[in-house]
Amino acid sequence: MKMLYEGKAKQVFLTDKEGEYIVHFKDDATAFNGVKKEKITGKGELNNAISSLIFEMLEKEGIKTHFIKKINSNDMLVKKVNILPLEVIIRNLSAGSLSKRLGLEEGIEFEEPVFELCYKRDDLADPIINDDHAVILGLASRVEIEQIKKETLKINELLKTFFRKANLRLIDFKIEYGRTDDGELLLADEVSPDTCRLWDIHTNEKMDKDRFRRDLGSVIEAYQEVLERIK
Amino acid sequence: MKMLYEGKAKQVFLTDKEGEYIVHFKDDATAFNGVKKEKITGKGELNNAISSLIFEMLEKEGIKTHFIKKINSNDMLVKKVNILPLEVIIRNLSAGSLSKRLGLEEGIEFEEPVFELCYKRDDLADPIINDDHAVILGLASRVEIEQIKKETLKINELLKTFFRKANLRLIDFKIEYGRTDDGELLLADEVSPDTCRLWDIHTNEKMDKDRFRRDLGSVIEAYQEVLERIK
Ligand SMILES: Nc1ncnc2c1ncn2[C@@H]1O[C@H](COP(=O)(O)OP(=O)(O)O)[C@@H](O)[C@H]1O
Ligand SMILES: Nc1ncnc2c1ncn2[C@@H]1O[C@H](COP(=O)(O)OP(=O)(O)O)[C@@H](O)[C@H]1O
Ligand SMILES: [Mg+2]
Ligand SMILES: [Mg+2]
Repeated sequence: MKMLYEGKAKQVFLTDKEGEYIVHFKDDATAFNGVKKEKITGKGELNNAISSLIFEMLEKEGIKTHFIKKINSNDMLVKKVNILPLEVIIRNLSAGSLSKRLGLEEGIEFEEPVFELCYKRDDLADPIINDDHAVILGLASRVEIEQIKKETLKINELLKTFFRKANLRLIDFKIEYGRTDDGELLLADEVSPDTCRLWDIHTNEKMDKDRFRRDLGSVIEAYQEVLERIK
Repeated sequence: MKMLYEGKAKQVFLTDKEGEYIVHFKDDATAFNGVKKEKITGKGELNNAISSLIFEMLEKEGIKTHFIKKINSNDMLVKKVNILPLEVIIRNLSAGSLSKRLGLEEGIEFEEPVFELCYKRDDLADPIINDDHAVILGLASRVEIEQIKKETLKINELLKTFFRKANLRLIDFKIEYGRTDDGELLLADEVSPDTCRLWDIHTNEKMDKDRFRRDLGSVIEAYQEVLERIK
């Protein structure tokens, strides 16, 4: 199988079928724009399982995603898209880079979800941008940005409910959208503890990539626990 | 006279009259969040003169500003406002921090003006924010942000025309708004070569604070030339 692209956490492969790719979830963990790196055995498998369950749930709720099916432990069959170089972020509570940039302690609940865009470009360290920047950079049209905002807020509501049932609080998440050759926008990439901040609803224990970023230990145990709870 | 506040480029004084302040323009120049500092004799006087002319022009064109009158070489009488801790920015062409953050060369003309907000907080290095951040930080209501956006785009058109007549190209600018005790939004602070990027329309020569930031020399001569051209 021809590998088209190798990213920090996944590989993308061509398939025999035009318009379908395989996404392979690796065990690699990176943080701080690739400065911190580690291999975490089992992470790829867990993220593939968690992402697959979430894409299935979202599809059932009417969200258009790239997900076709989980084909084995670490591989997912997806629709080929052209990824928009945008990190689309929703924050329900303050944490991480927002807390640092704006001088807010972590865990403050916002009255309304905060929508953020970053320009997905490793060499610029994914700078935060606003709608005007996205337009002048040619990343998306104004209509697409409005569509992305609306869809992402809807996804946030679905994910909040989904995780609440698993006694997890959705603090924030990052998603990526892609365009099919027909110009249709699809939710792509992954939705996993690598891309969502999840806190235990009772203890506020971190159950996501912050365990890796902040050297809290028990990374794989936390991801495993997330999978068990949402299954 | 009691000094209420000393900033990097100006001082604010109480007057005998309730609701009126005096803004004193200093000769101090600072850049890169105060890291680079210098005294530039004559700058305060020039910025007071230039700002006064611009506030007068904007008032005539229907923009509500804090400007009452220029009272002497370095002092301006203004309406007291509570400044919103927002740097409100418009960019007509790429330059400065936008070019650096987004990896764009300088001097690219945008099809539409780019609107930007920064959170005015020296200890955080004035981070760029979007509308949602401004709201959750309590800096302005959503209605005020829309009003600020509209007003600032109008000011941009007026300033572009004003400077074009002086053979100057308005690349970008930063303004600040304040609220009167009645809650009315007024354009406040200053509008000068410290806060606008101005390039000579024929030669693209920089006629603004970038001469100081980038050690291009002839800072005061450039500011003097701007004043002569707009008089
Ligand atoms: N359906 C898809 N079609 C094409 N590319 C995709 C699809 N889903 C995800 N991708 C891209 O594949 C790559 C996944 O690898 P990842 O390790 O996350 O990369 P990165 O380090 O660039 O974030 C990303 O660039 C992502 O945008
Ligand atoms: N009309 C006004 N009423 C009250 N404060 C004002 C008014 N106009 C400007 N200011 C404030 O006065 C200060 C001007 O000083 P400056 O040297 O520019 O400060 P800074 O270094 O904080 O930017 C700024 O904090 C500015 O927001
Ligand atoms: Mg990725
Ligand atoms: Mg200032």
